[in-house]
Amino acid sequence: MRQALREAARGLGRTSPNPPVGCVLVRGGRVVGRGFHPRAGEPHAEVFALREAGEQARGATAYVTLEPCSHFGRTPPCADALMAAGVARVVIAALDPDPRVAGQGAARLRAAGIDVTVGVGEAAALRQQAGFRSLVTRARPWVIYKYAMTLDGKVAALDGAGRPEANGLVTGPAARARVMQWRNEVDALAVGSGTVRTDDPRLTTRGVEGGRDPRPVIFDRQGLTPAHARVVRPGAVVVTAPGISLPAHEAAGAKVVTAEDLPGALIALGRLSLSTLLVEGGPTLASSLLRAGLVDEVRALVAPKLLGAGLSPLTGPARPMQEAAALREVTSESLTFEPLGPDLLITGLLNDIPRLTGGA
Amino acid sequence: MRQALREAARGLGRTSPNPPVGCVLVRGGRVVGRGFHPRAGEPHAEVFALREAGEQARGATAYVTLEPCSHFGRTPPCADALMAAGVARVVIAALDPDPRVAGQGAARLRAAGIDVTVGVGEAAALRQQAGFRSLVTRARPWVIYKYAMTLDGKVAALDGAGRPEANGLVTGPAARARVMQWRNEVDALAVGSGTVRTDDPRLTTRGVEGGRDPRPVIFDRQGLTPAHARVVRPGAVVVTAPGISLPAHEAAGAKVVTAEDLPGALIALGRLSLSTLLVEGGPTLASSLLRAGLVDEVRALVAPKLLGAGLSPLTGPARPMQEAAALREVTSESLTFEPLGPDLLITGLLNDIPRLTGGA
Repeated sequence: MRQALREAARGLGRTSPNPPVGCVLVRGGRVVGRGFHPRAGEPHAEVFALREAGEQARGATAYVTLEPCSHFGRTPPCADALMAAGVARVVIAALDPDPRVAGQGAARLRAAGIDVTVGVGEAAALRQQAGFRSLVTRARPWVIYKYAMTLDGKVAALDGAGRPEANGLVTGPAARARVMQWRNEVDALAVGSGTVRTDDPRLTTRGVEGGRDPRPVIFDRQGLTPAHARVVRPGAVVVTAPGISLPAHEAAGAKVVTAEDLPGALIALGRLSLSTLLVEGGPTLASSLLRAGLVDEVRALVAPKLLGAGLSPLTGPARPMQEAAALREVTSESLTFEPLGPDLLITGLLNDIPRLTGGA
Repeated sequence: MRQALREAARGLGRTSPNPPVGCVLVRGGRVVGRGFHPRAGEPHAEVFALREAGEQARGATAYVTLEPCSHFGRTPPCADALMAAGVARVVIAALDPDPRVAGQGAARLRAAGIDVTVGVGEAAALRQQAGFRSLVTRARPWVIYKYAMTLDGKVAALDGAGRPEANGLVTGPAARARVMQWRNEVDALAVGSGTVRTDDPRLTTRGVEGGRDPRPVIFDRQGLTPAHARVVRPGAVVVTAPGISLPAHEAAGAKVVTAEDLPGALIALGRLSLSTLLVEGGPTLASSLLRAGLVDEVRALVAPKLLGAGLSPLTGPARPMQEAAALREVTSESLTFEPLGPDLLITGLLNDIPRLTGGA
């Protein structure tokens, strides 16, 4: 299953609205086929693996990171393809919460006399499929707040005038490289209009082989983003309030959508098939999303330095410690620590990844 | 050596101005004697280990966490005792920076034909002896800033009036138990007078078997600490400015010392044989110590929750990110991560632990 998950990872950020899926076929202790879903409209992972295996698929075990589909979409059902190829056993990491599948893929395989196991490597598969699962069950992207702070909790130094310092790097090269990997793997990258006006960031993926840029999403209720900002480009999305029109931004290739509030904004992004949203810029935007319960995951990079005065990763009105937003199910699966050079990455979930239980 | 370090740990917080030291004697692969230095004036670790071993010390290997002394102090030199007992080999974790020893203990053993190895388990020994090493080479305690913060860098919530919330717990029971262990192991616990006036803390060691309270040290330049505060008790130290007299505090059993500035204050505490100072209370005190370069080590407990508005672990004037105080030699030895229940402990050094190199 680990190999199947690695296969699936190759499609991260490319498959929306479909999930990233990997499949490995094993016969006689040997891998006879591998595949991953490269993008919507192209064949599913199982199809690539079966093609590579050919006749060797007969009697093989298929390891697949997501329940094989049982419905006709743009491609015929994968459950049927596995059956037709004579696969003897199917090991599934996680069931598909898509109501068109939802356990029926596994049931269909079982009905055909195939041995089906569900739940092997499920935690890792859920992480990988969080965006798809969010889109298909909540009609909005999985929202990740990423920030890099000093060991005393500062994301930026202040200059003499009390404004955030523009170019003071918090973390080292390993942590910054990891952020680039994330940019390569998410569908979209969110910033507030304040960050665009202050920093005019590019929000591109740099230094990742075969990397591509996520779509920039600018949250801009008041329509204050300059149309000539670097992120206002084809593929970009500007989310603003109803009644505000931004023709210059549209002329620059950006898509302008309107929403009454933050939940509405996320639904609008879901409609654009954006399944994962990495929030990088602006404690104000992140804090508003957090207060609305819309931050699903945090990735905090902690640098071994102490600053003193500086900008905090979150802002907001005072509330008692008891009411702090708690990271859920704090286990090695949901809260993880990983050294990145001299820095430390702490990852945790605020909301559960939508999961299908029971049934199969 | 691991066993010798464990022996030594039993003396932590009890031995000042002496170091905590442990000794294990091994013959034929079997431990034949163990000892640790329990407190100043009592025998050294080697003596206890040799007593237990008796005749079995002949030909044995002694593992000792600090170089055996070569001078007559309150007890005769341990190097001589090891020689007299016929020990064949001595393995030393770290040389003694005390100018009365400083490699002469090892040299004396070697001159007597004993096989001497230095540096086994040195990193751990240096951590254990940081207080002694600071006292003997810098005449001031090793200063540790401990704080517990949320994942967004807040040590306390704010109440409606913008004041720090008094009783909002940041971390869970495992982290709080660890803090109690630290209190049991340090000589003194520092707070600012602001913290005393706001919280009136006890600063005692609770829930540690055989535990004892560290001496409270109140930094109070202006002499504002109420004499009836709970920490103003026998054993307590109040550090204030020259010219301020606090007879009521002295009547309550506290020692009052004066100093011109923070470096002077630490020297005054060194004169009281306080070798380790755990700074627990008040971002203001910690920030002043940090800016003066006087914080040697940080222990940050990070809780998996996000608060928003709140008090930061440090305050101070704005400075660029480049000038943040960097934790030194960030390796697995100097910067460590340890899960404590749902929380995470991050430990790092800002100053090097005084160490004797070369010579032996």
